[in-house]
Amino acid sequence: MPQDLSFADVQAAAQRIAKGAVRTPLMTCADLDRRVGAEVFLKCENLQRVGAFKYRGAANALAMMDGAALKRGVATHSSGNHAAALARVGRERGAAVTVVMPHDVPPVKRNAVAGYGARIVLCEPTMAARQAALEAVVAETGAEVVHPYEDYRVMAGQGTAALEMMSDLPDLDLVLAPIGGGGLMSGTAVVARQLRPKCKLYGVEPAGADDALRSLRAGVVTPIAKPDTIADGLRATVGRNTLPILIRTLDDIVTVDDDAIVRAMRYLWERVKLVVEPSAAVPLAALFEGRVPCNGRRIGIILSGGNVDLDALPWTKK
Amino acid sequence: MPQDLSFADVQAAAQRIAKGAVRTPLMTCADLDRRVGAEVFLKCENLQRVGAFKYRGAANALAMMDGAALKRGVATHSSGNHAAALARVGRERGAAVTVVMPHDVPPVKRNAVAGYGARIVLCEPTMAARQAALEAVVAETGAEVVHPYEDYRVMAGQGTAALEMMSDLPDLDLVLAPIGGGGLMSGTAVVARQLRPKCKLYGVEPAGADDALRSLRAGVVTPIAKPDTIADGLRATVGRNTLPILIRTLDDIVTVDDDAIVRAMRYLWERVKLVVEPSAAVPLAALFEGRVPCNGRRIGIILSGGNVDLDALPWTKK
Repeated sequence: MPQDLSFADVQAAAQRIAKGAVRTPLMTCADLDRRVGAEVFLKCENLQRVGAFKYRGAANALAMMDGAALKRGVATHSSGNHAAALARVGRERGAAVTVVMPHDVPPVKRNAVAGYGARIVLCEPTMAARQAALEAVVAETGAEVVHPYEDYRVMAGQGTAALEMMSDLPDLDLVLAPIGGGGLMSGTAVVARQLRPKCKLYGVEPAGADDALRSLRAGVVTPIAKPDTIADGLRATVGRNTLPILIRTLDDIVTVDDDAIVRAMRYLWERVKLVVEPSAAVPLAALFEGRVPCNGRRIGIILSGGNVDLDALPWTKK
Repeated sequence: MPQDLSFADVQAAAQRIAKGAVRTPLMTCADLDRRVGAEVFLKCENLQRVGAFKYRGAANALAMMDGAALKRGVATHSSGNHAAALARVGRERGAAVTVVMPHDVPPVKRNAVAGYGARIVLCEPTMAARQAALEAVVAETGAEVVHPYEDYRVMAGQGTAALEMMSDLPDLDLVLAPIGGGGLMSGTAVVARQLRPKCKLYGVEPAGADDALRSLRAGVVTPIAKPDTIADGLRATVGRNTLPILIRTLDDIVTVDDDAIVRAMRYLWERVKLVVEPSAAVPLAALFEGRVPCNGRRIGIILSGGNVDLDALPWTKK
């Protein structure tokens, strides 16, 4: 089990998952470039298997497990996309998958997990309840836990999106990704620092779930009592394993409020014709809100996922 | 002014519009392939400029006009996407654009046209009212009419989507496109018959606007009194210029009802993560409904456009 995250780990992960993962396209939009006064490239992980970058991390973790471990099965807790990814990869490799989920997860995400044949254990939507339920599952089944972001195998897999993006675009000046638990950002940052050391590197969080920003400032994991944001994929608390990576790699973390997130999400649907979930729109919201200096730069953004409940869109709820 | 449509016309159009038009991606979806038991390739014209294949036709028409004609300006009537395309291409080439539109057109389409700086003249939503309003505009301004589908320059431009698709995929067994006025289908059919004569070729219409099917059977343009379908881009009546091309090229025309169109549209949003308008989902609906034999085949579908009013989605109206 790896105990840190290096660029070589991401390269090795890319080899391991090359067969299963989609090499997602980069999209551009002339209107978007005009609007922000820069060249923006969107790495479309909403078009990844299971509709999110999480596939990459789960695929790498299971590819590093031996046959005996796969036979005992895997388990995780997740707000949705990591769960779907683990369920799908588990099915591909014949490993039983158990997923602990908060009961308030959007139906579209819960159905995706069930659709891949995983067992779902529901719990209260707190980190403590998730942890307790997961420990019970492990005690019962002997399954190996694949944490959604604290697992270095997962981070390495998640970094392969940035590896593809920066191989295709070796001259980016600025890279942005959303931060939930920090796995995607960690993998992205390790790649960017290696391939393009002078590239500016910002994480973006919802203002209502800005634990990573607080933790970056404090130098220690600093949870907030009640994350409150429409970006359901970003409510998790930054990890003890991811935070040190963020501290040593990021230029900064900035935040955006939910109104800005919904505006950016709607823009991506209306003008770029991409279905993205609120979490995926967070970095673009930071550009639209002027939170990151971007004038004239070449900017790469990881669009993290596209799993949305089409019956409960933020602009039709009111 | 060309008086018929040949494969060479489409090739020449591709040269003319290469600089302005997006070479749109082909997308695939493993779940979709499993569901229909075939290999399906989606030509993403929703990612084209102005969000629809109509850009290609307008771009070719204006590229074939001389400076004096551009100076007098251009005019058209359109349910939306052709209007937006003409407005945008007119702006690119410095030609004044006047658009006659029915007053019940979705706001998103009307705003797109206005946003490109075109003058909008509203009329009743009948072909007769559109025609009268357009004639008044021409009498007033001397503008040249660029018809949304009866103009052979427009058809040639619209055929370039299929030219790209079939150059990338030379071994398709089946090609599907939606039919409104028949311009896209004409251009597509001329390309398919040249590059892959034995390829099956079907047009798809909404059941509530099946004038092209009736016209194909009757051998003469046969309008229906009141087109009634959610696929607002397909309400136009097949043309006197397009129908003969459809008669000599298509294997058949099939129809799908609005419920099937909405289901296919929702599928494309939910699973493929693409924002498409109802008209664009019509060919996929035909596959899902089993209207076209497709078992094991390699199928190319033109996804015609992605301009939708996000405040009035078909599955949130009820």
